Amino acid sequence: MSASGESPAYRTLAPGEVAPYLATRPELRERLGGDASRWQVREVGDGNLNLVYLVEGASGSVCLKQALPYVRAAGPSWPMPPQRAFYEHAYYRAVAPHAGSWVPAIHHYDPDLYCIVMERLSPHIILRRGLIAGRRYPTLGESVGRFIARATFWSSDLGLAFEHKMRTLQLFSGNTALIRISVDLIFQDPYRLSPRNRHTSPELDREVEALRTDGELKLAVARLGERFLSEPQALLHGDLHSGSVMVHEEDVRIIDPEFAFLGPIGFDLGAFFGNLLLAWYAQPGHAARPGERDGHRQWILDTARGFWEHFRAEFLTLWREHSQGDAYPRSVFSGDADREILERERRQRLDGLLRDMLGYAACKMIRRIVGFAHVLDFESIADRRQRARCESAALACARRLLLESWRSIEDVLAMVPRLEAARELGRS
Amino acid sequence: MSASGESPAYRTLAPGEVAPYLATRPELRERLGGDASRWQVREVGDGNLNLVYLVEGASGSVCLKQALPYVRAAGPSWPMPPQRAFYEHAYYRAVAPHAGSWVPAIHHYDPDLYCIVMERLSPHIILRRGLIAGRRYPTLGESVGRFIARATFWSSDLGLAFEHKMRTLQLFSGNTALIRISVDLIFQDPYRLSPRNRHTSPELDREVEALRTDGELKLAVARLGERFLSEPQALLHGDLHSGSVMVHEEDVRIIDPEFAFLGPIGFDLGAFFGNLLLAWYAQPGHAARPGERDGHRQWILDTARGFWEHFRAEFLTLWREHSQGDAYPRSVFSGDADREILERERRQRLDGLLRDMLGYAACKMIRRIVGFAHVLDFESIADRRQRARCESAALACARRLLLESWRSIEDVLAMVPRLEAARELGRS
Repeated sequence: MSASGESPAYRTLAPGEVAPYLATRPELRERLGGDASRWQVREVGDGNLNLVYLVEGASGSVCLKQALPYVRAAGPSWPMPPQRAFYEHAYYRAVAPHAGSWVPAIHHYDPDLYCIVMERLSPHIILRRGLIAGRRYPTLGESVGRFIARATFWSSDLGLAFEHKMRTLQLFSGNTALIRISVDLIFQDPYRLSPRNRHTSPELDREVEALRTDGELKLAVARLGERFLSEPQALLHGDLHSGSVMVHEEDVRIIDPEFAFLGPIGFDLGAFFGNLLLAWYAQPGHAARPGERDGHRQWILDTARGFWEHFRAEFLTLWREHSQGDAYPRSVFSGDADREILERERRQRLDGLLRDMLGYAACKMIRRIVGFAHVLDFESIADRRQRARCESAALACARRLLLESWRSIEDVLAMVPRLEAARELGRS
Repeated sequence: MSASGESPAYRTLAPGEVAPYLATRPELRERLGGDASRWQVREVGDGNLNLVYLVEGASGSVCLKQALPYVRAAGPSWPMPPQRAFYEHAYYRAVAPHAGSWVPAIHHYDPDLYCIVMERLSPHIILRRGLIAGRRYPTLGESVGRFIARATFWSSDLGLAFEHKMRTLQLFSGNTALIRISVDLIFQDPYRLSPRNRHTSPELDREVEALRTDGELKLAVARLGERFLSEPQALLHGDLHSGSVMVHEEDVRIIDPEFAFLGPIGFDLGAFFGNLLLAWYAQPGHAARPGERDGHRQWILDTARGFWEHFRAEFLTLWREHSQGDAYPRSVFSGDADREILERERRQRLDGLLRDMLGYAACKMIRRIVGFAHVLDFESIADRRQRARCESAALACARRLLLESWRSIEDVLAMVPRLEAARELGRS
């Protein structure tokens, strides 16, 4: 399988073409059921890059996602190869054996139209909207934490022989168009003048200016940016923010892995962790009265802790019990005395992943406040000065995540409300 | 271009077939000159993997290297895909624009026969043989140091946009058969029981046994082994020992890059540095009388220092003057205050490369003494006990290189003779 070359048969599917298209495939026709002309088709894409149709038939429903040849949020003037659907599908295929219960079932991939027909998730909503609305999801932290642990372990040099990993590396190294977006928008634009940047102005003007002249901060980001490109530890989702998670009270699914590539595990961890922090910082802007969201905020921090701890526990268990790759090879560490040495090493490596998570979380937080693509958590706060206060507090947190040497998740989660309280005190 | 699939036209060239084969190509026919039936053909391969023919015509000469489908040193029972010639040729092509004066000129590559026709280097000899013979090469350290600096910088995220690097990564990630050899023989076999291992016995029995139970040492090696697989900093030669360098007094060329892949820059540095140290440790075994090789040993250490310093200076200069990649992007570090911060970072990164070099050097030294493929430096010492003394001293040095935290090349080069002197004292 390959993604090279554009398909000459590519065309975008208009709403009226969706049902006839699906009806050509017997297994989809059966799944939807009844007369295809009566299937209901709705376009619901609210992301930046794709058409998303929900299709309901007499007996079932599906979701059809088609890659557009440009960035939807910017229009045809920012072209974007639709081959990213190839990588999205390849990611779903790769993680299905080990983490399939946390992704949608895939019914069909069309390499000509760059579209994927998959399980329609219902009654799920996008996690970001749930967080803004103040809703809670008891299994959220555990689900995403264990998902990342399984998806990354089994594509790492711990989980499998390097020959398999290098095949995956060959495949996903072709996803350069989307990796370029991440490189530019996460690691570069926020720290230089760019016409794509925007921020809440004039309130954040000084802080944004300061970012561009903060040498130590830029250095910390540049190191993470280089490692993003040159440490393919495992297959990553590549864009695992709270808009890429669908939830209802009893289920959690990861979607939209078109940014998939091989990189540092902390990057996926940090995307999710950083977006939980953004949700935390945005809560005062969604409170009908002061303090109304305090309980929800505490739940978000508890979820962030649970997320990390479940990731850590699952990854350690996999490493202890299923290590069969070329990293720390079993045949070399087979003695009794090796057991303790290896266990110490595992814990150290997990401490390193914690630091990576915090650093990448900070990069993600910053880019969502001063860069091209913002988040609804803040954007939906109508009062500009209130929004700026939330954003400014999040930027201050990100800076500390990047520049201090964190040793435990508890230290981080204790810092977050303390830092905000200190800032409030400083203002009053 | 691709290396996948075996060529159905592949056959090994017998000596009698070489001249007729070369004569079919007009540019080679012209280069060699005269009547093809009178060209002189000699097979000179002394490596582990290939046929090497030197061909002399009336007006010129060439070298033809053909990959065999098995490990020559082991015979057809250890198969080895001849596609490695594809990667060798791809490496030569990749480094030619920036480091072409330190590799042979390539005249022709045949993707069916997996053979490369290249410049015949004369009066060059293999560096390892020169070192054993006690000969000196004034430009050696500078040449190899600058070669590695240029070959790696220009394939790194400092030297070029990541899209180019990922194409290179896709290409060389296919070279898994040869990467597997490195993984097994360098990072795994020496630290476990393996029928491929051998050592000078019984003198080194205890030390070899100790290697398999030395948890801290195995951990240090395992970390380097994991990074070997998961940190594609730059395109590497992959096997840059003193048998992959051809020299005469005024010229130095790097050959045999069939192990090429993308990995940590310290791996190439360490291969060369470690083999210089092996040469140093072997010198007493080649001395006609005690002390005869003292001057030569000093020259080897001076060369090791010059090698590192020339690498460092060249790499720093390239980074300062030609950085145009996505790592530490120029557009982000464009302020006056950034200059100092970036310069400090460059020096820190080079300190990191020094540590990597020493670690990988140690891995290479150990595998050449207790693993499958040994080096002529030691093998040519007929007196077994004398050889064991040299090898044992080299193993002790490797252990210190791996387990101590080295801060300068001077500290390392001072340690080497001191450690040996202390050991001699301990024995007497």
